[in-house]
Amino acid sequence: MTLPTDPAANLAELIRCPSVTPAEGNALSVLSGMLKAFDCTVERPVFSDEDTPDVENLYARLSGNGPHLMFAGHTDVVPPGDEAAWTHPPFEAVVANGEMYGRGAVDMKGGIACFVAALARYVERHGRPRGSVSFLITGDEEGPAINGTVKLLEWAAARGESWDAAIVGEPTNPEKLGDMIKIGRRGSLSGRITVTGTQGHVAYPHLADNPVRGMVALLDALLSPPLDEGTEDFQATNLEITTVDVGNKATNVIPAKASATFNIRFNDSWSAESLQAEIHNRLDRAAEENRLRPGREEPAAFDLEWLGRASPVFLTRDEKLIDTLSASVEVVTGSRPGLSTSGGTSDARFIKDYCPVVEFGLVGQTMHMVDERVAVADLETLTQIYLRFLEDWFA
Amino acid sequence: MTLPTDPAANLAELIRCPSVTPAEGNALSVLSGMLKAFDCTVERPVFSDEDTPDVENLYARLSGNGPHLMFAGHTDVVPPGDEAAWTHPPFEAVVANGEMYGRGAVDMKGGIACFVAALARYVERHGRPRGSVSFLITGDEEGPAINGTVKLLEWAAARGESWDAAIVGEPTNPEKLGDMIKIGRRGSLSGRITVTGTQGHVAYPHLADNPVRGMVALLDALLSPPLDEGTEDFQATNLEITTVDVGNKATNVIPAKASATFNIRFNDSWSAESLQAEIHNRLDRAAEENRLRPGREEPAAFDLEWLGRASPVFLTRDEKLIDTLSASVEVVTGSRPGLSTSGGTSDARFIKDYCPVVEFGLVGQTMHMVDERVAVADLETLTQIYLRFLEDWFA
Ligand SMILES: [Zn+2]
Ligand SMILES: [Zn+2]
Repeated sequence: MTLPTDPAANLAELIRCPSVTPAEGNALSVLSGMLKAFDCTVERPVFSDEDTPDVENLYARLSGNGPHLMFAGHTDVVPPGDEAAWTHPPFEAVVANGEMYGRGAVDMKGGIACFVAALARYVERHGRPRGSVSFLITGDEEGPAINGTVKLLEWAAARGESWDAAIVGEPTNPEKLGDMIKIGRRGSLSGRITVTGTQGHVAYPHLADNPVRGMVALLDALLSPPLDEGTEDFQATNLEITTVDVGNKATNVIPAKASATFNIRFNDSWSAESLQAEIHNRLDRAAEENRLRPGREEPAAFDLEWLGRASPVFLTRDEKLIDTLSASVEVVTGSRPGLSTSGGTSDARFIKDYCPVVEFGLVGQTMHMVDERVAVADLETLTQIYLRFLEDWFA
Repeated sequence: MTLPTDPAANLAELIRCPSVTPAEGNALSVLSGMLKAFDCTVERPVFSDEDTPDVENLYARLSGNGPHLMFAGHTDVVPPGDEAAWTHPPFEAVVANGEMYGRGAVDMKGGIACFVAALARYVERHGRPRGSVSFLITGDEEGPAINGTVKLLEWAAARGESWDAAIVGEPTNPEKLGDMIKIGRRGSLSGRITVTGTQGHVAYPHLADNPVRGMVALLDALLSPPLDEGTEDFQATNLEITTVDVGNKATNVIPAKASATFNIRFNDSWSAESLQAEIHNRLDRAAEENRLRPGREEPAAFDLEWLGRASPVFLTRDEKLIDTLSASVEVVTGSRPGLSTSGGTSDARFIKDYCPVVEFGLVGQTMHMVDERVAVADLETLTQIYLRFLEDWFA
């Protein structure tokens, strides 16, 4: 049996599986075939939930005596959008001008293809590593993320699995391969404010109570002053008001209600709880001050509802993991990667409860876009980086 | 021929005409019959427009040598709403417990019924007045107001009509008959602000530009400081934000656009033009200051669109008109009415371009509501006030 040592060949096979969330699209079966070629044990747990579709997942392990490394990722992809707008079809893996086109090329079938190739080369050269390598691959990262990584981790842990370190193969590099390793992520918290007033005619404002007045005061208090200036390891906490809605079509009517939603990406100067308390304080104070505005005798009457669960902030401090990966990048590319905590959330926020985790993969520029594609040279480079990491981490 | 000297009988006849805008509902024909009983000439011009229904109007005149008084008003009424919710049907003029029920009872078939009765009594007692009295009555006050008072005034003026004073018979009394004469109205001005940003992901705010941030700054600048403190004759200018809308459902997406609409009721410290300039200044300054907020390098990019035509502020200063009417109210009711410029706009804002105008009618509490009704005693009182006014004004 040939080992899957060519990342471009691995990726082409995976791209040809139309695994738009929640469809498995044969992608996990194809991956399973590759892993079995070097004697991984492969399991395919399916998780279900009342409100969301069933999702197929994969957990594979190449066992050995020594530390246990996890590679985590997903084979599901976002929809291709307007297929006619693609230069080459999204599920055919056409190579043109040194680039392979396809949905998932960088996010993140490409990362998986490279790690599989790296491990295959390792086995080819050195035999089994002095330790274990497992693949924790979900088909529900781009979807509701309910029947994916969280349940797969619980499932594996319940069977006695434990890990010493993890790499998530998401595309972490903003510009060129080797730019950036992610060693943490900000937390995320969303809330909705509703201000209730009293409807009336604009000519008789004393008989009404315009909720927009209070809403403006509350939103202003959310926006300034800044929540913090950033920390040694993280960017400044940032709050974005994502919508404000009243829906009143009559210009002579004072509306009865206004609502607004906001999202905060927060750093390690906050816990979700301390941040919620700060937001409550700001809103209470602004509602109280709103009474001092012309025509107000009462504080703005508002409700604050937290939406969903907060994602906590995390920062990985495992020196062996970070230094080994940084050195591998530097050996292969010639330059040292930046260590970053910027950007959105990823499944690393779940994995960090089990073991130290970093993220490193391809260049993210075309992810989720029409003409998602990867330089074939980057696939080879990333494979070499992963291989070097395996060699050093298990040394 | 009996003269229409009984205001309750006149009103009952008018209420039984279902003249919901733009329907004439026989109301102008009934009125025409009353006026012809004391030798008014009656004309019934119909005005049309491309986009709105044709509207019937009425102009009647009892001519004499001397000053010319106009009585202005409307026979159209707002819809009755849920007819089942009425204690007595909206178009039957049922009297119960001393009150006559019906749509238009106070707004403003009642005012017309009283003025007709007052003039009929005048003619019965004194013969023709030493001057002229005309009725300028539209069927399009509660509707788009395009084919009503404005065109009727132009039409009459084009035929050589001119007036020395006008009374609009709208319900001006907030609590009890005689409370309040309106001698002016604030102006009205509406605008819409649109802030354009750049859509993006909340985790990458530096790649996006959230328009809500700028919108909050702009709205805050509209709301404070107050535009003025009020003047000798007018309440403070008041601005209400009537809606704010973004319509973004995704809490992880920074939206591309936000819009808001506002209405200003302004006093005689402003012209529509000076107020528009002030609003522009406030918005420009706030957009500029918005650059100083965290993460901003450019002023908020906004558009300001003025909606419809501004209604100008006006104040009537005709001492003979105001004093004669005030004295008539005092003689009949025993107390002096307040002179007010509060509340919404009315057709007086068009009439003031032709002659001094005041507004005085019934008690407005039930106008536009289910169970609109008038105390029969109030009809008699208002008739006596109008009669006394006619006697004194023509004396
Ligand atoms: Zn991904
Ligand atoms: Zn009216």
